[in-house]
Amino acid sequence: MVRNFRDMLEKNWAAGKFLCVGLDPDFEKVPEHLKRHGIHDALLAFNRGIIDATADIAGSYKPNTAFYEAYGDIGWEVLRETIQYIRENAPDAPVIADAKRGDIGNSNNGYVDAIFKHLQADAITVHPYLGAEALKPFLEQSDKGVIVLCRTSNPGAREVQDLLVGDIPLYQAVARMVADSWNANGNCALVVGATYPNELALVRSIAPDLPILIPGVGAQGGDVKKTIENGRDARGCGMIIASSRAIMYASNGTDFEEAAHRAAYALDSAIREAAVR
Amino acid sequence: MVRNFRDMLEKNWAAGKFLCVGLDPDFEKVPEHLKRHGIHDALLAFNRGIIDATADIAGSYKPNTAFYEAYGDIGWEVLRETIQYIRENAPDAPVIADAKRGDIGNSNNGYVDAIFKHLQADAITVHPYLGAEALKPFLEQSDKGVIVLCRTSNPGAREVQDLLVGDIPLYQAVARMVADSWNANGNCALVVGATYPNELALVRSIAPDLPILIPGVGAQGGDVKKTIENGRDARGCGMIIASSRAIMYASNGTDFEEAAHRAAYALDSAIREAAVR
Repeated sequence: MVRNFRDMLEKNWAAGKFLCVGLDPDFEKVPEHLKRHGIHDALLAFNRGIIDATADIAGSYKPNTAFYEAYGDIGWEVLRETIQYIRENAPDAPVIADAKRGDIGNSNNGYVDAIFKHLQADAITVHPYLGAEALKPFLEQSDKGVIVLCRTSNPGAREVQDLLVGDIPLYQAVARMVADSWNANGNCALVVGATYPNELALVRSIAPDLPILIPGVGAQGGDVKKTIENGRDARGCGMIIASSRAIMYASNGTDFEEAAHRAAYALDSAIREAAVR
Repeated sequence: MVRNFRDMLEKNWAAGKFLCVGLDPDFEKVPEHLKRHGIHDALLAFNRGIIDATADIAGSYKPNTAFYEAYGDIGWEVLRETIQYIRENAPDAPVIADAKRGDIGNSNNGYVDAIFKHLQADAITVHPYLGAEALKPFLEQSDKGVIVLCRTSNPGAREVQDLLVGDIPLYQAVARMVADSWNANGNCALVVGATYPNELALVRSIAPDLPILIPGVGAQGGDVKKTIENGRDARGCGMIIASSRAIMYASNGTDFEEAAHRAAYALDSAIREAAVR
């Protein structure tokens, strides 16, 4: 059976699963008892522990490639093995490679091979700056999710994303392009940070049918209730609510799996409560 | 001695070296006689051949990470070894990791480790969309080049980059931001495709002192003479003129090094001729 990103999301949303568990391992912060066998084994064991602890809760997983590339070829090996582990142990949870890629078409073919063939992810995050023509190698993968950066969660997002294009800010112009034309294969989504609840509501009104990946809940300060009020679609779905640090680093002791499970469960419960109108 | 990207460029410009050799290996297109030992050895031998053939000509090298990531962890190993080979065999040529990265600050720290510590590159290309606050981990590496996408070489660049921000297109607004504020450490540069000569002239007028990385000469159709007329700074310098496919794939036979040398020499001669006003 072909894994289709949007279909997997829809199935999980129907079960009330909106939580996306970020997998951003940092050797410095990994529990001490995992460190003795070196970086590769420590990062992989840590990720496997987090996946085991959240497999019954997570609606999706989101490894950020930066945290793996920091360790070079070893990191890429850990990333590939992590995704393989998710596919085997949490087979209903799609994997979003949070890679924020975006090059000319000829080079994007390389990223398609990297992310979808080599790493076997189900979706990728991309920059909008080069336009749909350059993103074609991603967009034509109709079973894969192409999640376009719209309003990012960082404090300085306004500098470029709020530049006025005619009478609307750039991030809204991007949301319109994606909703109106880039989504021809029905595989697009948008990134809007939970740290910008008003912008989230505006993007939802521009793109009523697109999934929105919403990072920034937890460590970055986004509010769960506002996120859901402003981010849900007409059916009460359409959200991929991502949390990384609050779950992964709930404890750095031998109880890290239990602590991660409790943190994921608490956040999932808060989401479910807020999702009931 | 600390390698400083801008200083290395200046020294090479003083010697008339503007050519940047792109290193974008594709196993399918590698000469047959290199293929028998598998992907890792073939790609590395191919890159080493191209580097040997161009070491006396190249003012810089530019591996595009997409072509390496396509092969996963093996590709990353080849990329690291390729950069090491350049540092040893063409020590005056800075290495630009054409990675087009751009995430929130916390994640960009990972990319800083990946590109500058692990891979040992001298510069990176980045997306402007998240703003200077997010790019801070790159910008504060004062010896490293931070080359911001401004006007990319692809046919569809207009879609987003020509959106009017007030009375100027977005790519000019980006050029202004970088020239006026992001370049506080003197380590910024801009990307403008040779396929857009008019836009190149406009960016040069907005950013008289920034180096401009100019891809798109050769296979993509950019004209050398126009590129130099429109891209040079007041001193006749400031350009990093990149060519990949026309040099790397000048021949796919056993004479690939000779052919690459001839192609690089011909392009370098055309650049030198046009650079003399």
